[in-house]
Amino acid sequence: MKQYSKEEIDKFISLLDFSKIEGNLVPVIAQDYQTNECLMLAFANEEAVRNSLETGIACYYSRSRKTLWKKGEESGHFQEIQHVLVDCYVDTLLLKVKQNVAACHSGHYSCFYREYDDGELKTIAKKVFSPENVYKK
Amino acid sequence: MKQYSKEEIDKFISLLDFSKIEGNLVPVIAQDYQTNECLMLAFANEEAVRNSLETGIACYYSRSRKTLWKKGEESGHFQEIQHVLVDCYVDTLLLKVKQNVAACHSGHYSCFYREYDDGELKTIAKKVFSPENVYKK
Repeated sequence: MKQYSKEEIDKFISLLDFSKIEGNLVPVIAQDYQTNECLMLAFANEEAVRNSLETGIACYYSRSRKTLWKKGEESGHFQEIQHVLVDCYVDTLLLKVKQNVAACHSGHYSCFYREYDDGELKTIAKKVFSPENVYKK
Repeated sequence: MKQYSKEEIDKFISLLDFSKIEGNLVPVIAQDYQTNECLMLAFANEEAVRNSLETGIACYYSRSRKTLWKKGEESGHFQEIQHVLVDCYVDTLLLKVKQNVAACHSGHYSCFYREYDDGELKTIAKKVFSPENVYKK
């Protein structure tokens, strides 16, 4: 897991362009650091990026709840950050993570568990946990 | 390359949630269909999704130019769509593509060619083409 000093975090945030998405956000792709499987896409504001780099555990901004969203806070399915990449415009992050259990609340390892094929969304991955056993609220 | 009928395209668009991003857009991740390397993140409106599925070649919406953006129209670096995946909320697309030459205008295969490490953005990939030879305008 990566460790960053306060100076490194401040500098990183100053390099990012949060202006492209309403609410001063950057899109964040989480990807399995070993297989490169895409796990999810979410958004982060400055505070969420700061939290991610301070803790080494991915943190996002929930646009629906309008609050920081520590991925895994309820399920325990945390994402341990291994590498932090940026795109050419420095307005998108790619986190290569060690995903605990699964990224998706549906029970699938990746949120991208369906392919559009023959006119329908076909599930192409098996569940790795049962949501009803994990989300008790 | 995938082929879709008009009915399949209409149905797919009706399944997507364009309401989450200002301007009725969905984020689209392009990923190498063989290695799973993340190539880029862009946005698409309904028209861009329709164009992608009609042609089998990835099309986005340029928020800066406010127009459809056929990836590769200037460079010839088209993305041939192999698989179309959606996430759990049906508000994000993942295109698994055969990338011609490179995805990034910088000359790198992926737009994510830099990692934040030791307080700086370090380039972690070599260029695969020279932008000055490709973009003549």
